[in-house]
Amino acid sequence: MTRLADKAAQNLAAVREKKPLIHNITNFVVMNYTANALLAMGASPVMAHSQGEVEEMVAFAGALVINIGTLEDDWLTSMIKAGKKASQQKTPIILDPVGSGATTLRTYAAKKIIAETRLSVIRGNASEILSLRNEDSQTKGVDSIHSVDDAAQTAKVLAEELKTTLAITGPVDLVTDGKRVIRVANGHPLMGYVTGSGCTATATIGAFLAVDQNPLSATATALAFFGLAGEVAGQKAHAPGTFMIRMLDALYTISPEELNAGCQIEESN
Amino acid sequence: MTRLADKAAQNLAAVREKKPLIHNITNFVVMNYTANALLAMGASPVMAHSQGEVEEMVAFAGALVINIGTLEDDWLTSMIKAGKKASQQKTPIILDPVGSGATTLRTYAAKKIIAETRLSVIRGNASEILSLRNEDSQTKGVDSIHSVDDAAQTAKVLAEELKTTLAITGPVDLVTDGKRVIRVANGHPLMGYVTGSGCTATATIGAFLAVDQNPLSATATALAFFGLAGEVAGQKAHAPGTFMIRMLDALYTISPEELNAGCQIEESN
Amino acid sequence: MTRLADKAAQNLAAVREKKPLIHNITNFVVMNYTANALLAMGASPVMAHSQGEVEEMVAFAGALVINIGTLEDDWLTSMIKAGKKASQQKTPIILDPVGSGATTLRTYAAKKIIAETRLSVIRGNASEILSLRNEDSQTKGVDSIHSVDDAAQTAKVLAEELKTTLAITGPVDLVTDGKRVIRVANGHPLMGYVTGSGCTATATIGAFLAVDQNPLSATATALAFFGLAGEVAGQKAHAPGTFMIRMLDALYTISPEELNAGCQIEESN
Repeated sequence: MTRLADKAAQNLAAVREKKPLIHNITNFVVMNYTANALLAMGASPVMAHSQGEVEEMVAFAGALVINIGTLEDDWLTSMIKAGKKASQQKTPIILDPVGSGATTLRTYAAKKIIAETRLSVIRGNASEILSLRNEDSQTKGVDSIHSVDDAAQTAKVLAEELKTTLAITGPVDLVTDGKRVIRVANGHPLMGYVTGSGCTATATIGAFLAVDQNPLSATATALAFFGLAGEVAGQKAHAPGTFMIRMLDALYTISPEELNAGCQIEESN
Repeated sequence: MTRLADKAAQNLAAVREKKPLIHNITNFVVMNYTANALLAMGASPVMAHSQGEVEEMVAFAGALVINIGTLEDDWLTSMIKAGKKASQQKTPIILDPVGSGATTLRTYAAKKIIAETRLSVIRGNASEILSLRNEDSQTKGVDSIHSVDDAAQTAKVLAEELKTTLAITGPVDLVTDGKRVIRVANGHPLMGYVTGSGCTATATIGAFLAVDQNPLSATATALAFFGLAGEVAGQKAHAPGTFMIRMLDALYTISPEELNAGCQIEESN
Repeated sequence: MTRLADKAAQNLAAVREKKPLIHNITNFVVMNYTANALLAMGASPVMAHSQGEVEEMVAFAGALVINIGTLEDDWLTSMIKAGKKASQQKTPIILDPVGSGATTLRTYAAKKIIAETRLSVIRGNASEILSLRNEDSQTKGVDSIHSVDDAAQTAKVLAEELKTTLAITGPVDLVTDGKRVIRVANGHPLMGYVTGSGCTATATIGAFLAVDQNPLSATATALAFFGLAGEVAGQKAHAPGTFMIRMLDALYTISPEELNAGCQIEESN
């Protein structure tokens, strides 16, 4: 735990120093908030989705964030195109499979992106992540999960099947690469009342992936930072409008030392 | 009036308890604010517009909100597709005919949606609503309206022609199903300085339609709630940036009891 | 300087009095913030990009704002269409060449808009503006600029080549029509932490162009107003979330007299 807290502080300092360009192909609802969050934490966001430029744009980027909310067919083509280019260049990619499992199009899109690109991380809620299973998966469904340990076991199996790091976020976030399991307890209930909280957590992981080659520690430390920003915002704000603005403030003001002291990351197995 | 105040409180409590999924096909400008407003009041927003998924998505929804701002041809096709599915399933639909009357495309789109779907409510400003008249309409134009009573009379005739409930919002909102006429006096001048105030009022009606089968009372009580949120925000905020954030706060903090006490709904004829 | 300060006050008062309709074809990230900023300062924003309505819409507008962020092919067609109509009608047009120079598509799009429409103003950062040079340009590149005077000289030459007014924004903004050079020193460092600060500065210039026929003074005074709003916001806000909301407040609250007293505009040559 101490080592991950140190790593969190180190990653935040590195984002602020290197200001990595984060290329986002994300949904219309959260574009503004995500861009503001990335700027606040010290990264450089760019949003670009045209098939005519995504390959050129991602070549400059420290990480690629793909988010399938408000999906259109053309956008999926661009996501794959950008993802293939990023894969070739070993630029880390994170997928947010928004709504996978809810509609056929979203599940199809998420699985296609998984099949055709080299993902470092996938972040979603439990049902989104479990919808990514293959037909012959050994992974159990949401209904069969009765405890936190069940969830951890299921996530480990699925991470191995999908050959990537998985982050299942909720009151306690679970991060696993199929071998190690890390839990992150930072966060605040009002985060659930801000649209794109999850999407912005994904973008934050993108920024940390640009400065930390280990997807597991990049993901866990990013989630701790994002959750701590929620806690700091929640100290002064008691309703979602003010809260979402204070979260942007907190992403800017939290120092690496405060993150080191405040992050609640625990490794189990 | 007392009964509508009670109904307002009851509807708000029902939204918070049932957390209805509100499917929005809306414009790019207001997506984020609308989603945050729906979350703040206790509903569950989803934004999805792809022809490949709108029918599947709307099947889960408690109401469908169609808003023709920043319109594109493809989007209109999706709106009709989602609207037809919702009509079949008796899921309430509300239309916001943004800019109808201003351009040929918008007027055409609004009329096409009216013709091809079963709308519960249409909300707009006076000129948007009057642009929806048919050629052989008995309804008088904006220029011929010289008093609040004129407006009420015109709205009643048009509601009957269009076979739906109409909400004409302004300093005092007018709601009519062609038989009854309700006026809602809640609101604050700064609401006119926040982009998408009207669009978000429409989405709020969508949330109330998901818990109240009577379009007239759902619409009037939703507008009272939304207007009261403006009043609460205006008590502390004196400029539009702070005001729009405090409105989100108020949508979250106003209790059913406060809404009962604060709503200014009056039925006339 | 005194005359430009007077002009700034006069332009702001005129925007508030005439409430000009500003037609924006802009990117998804900033649409909401830009619309809110235009409303806050007293203008009437409309966002419309469909090929089926841009000509009709721009016919009502006091100015057209074209911004190539999150560009798609279809949108470029609409930008040209709206731009040609505005050119015919002598409606002022301002271009924000977001990302020109970064990708081939963006540079191509910016140059095509310049070639096919009659632009009053182009606003960007130094590298965006310099990317607009023709092959046989006399203008020096970014690398060869070693002082503020170098930059002014380069901008003057380029403004003459492009036959338009150029605004290169940064810590000190430079505005030139190829003959006169004006520097605007208003602003605040937190503006760089708000997504779409530049885009919204462009839209502010659009609003001022709608009330001031001189592109040079419209641009300089709009940038002074926008920068002063940043300064006012920065007096109370120390982090980007709160800051961006207070900027909207300041665009609403700053009076013409306060702008006259606070603007830092200096003409050199």
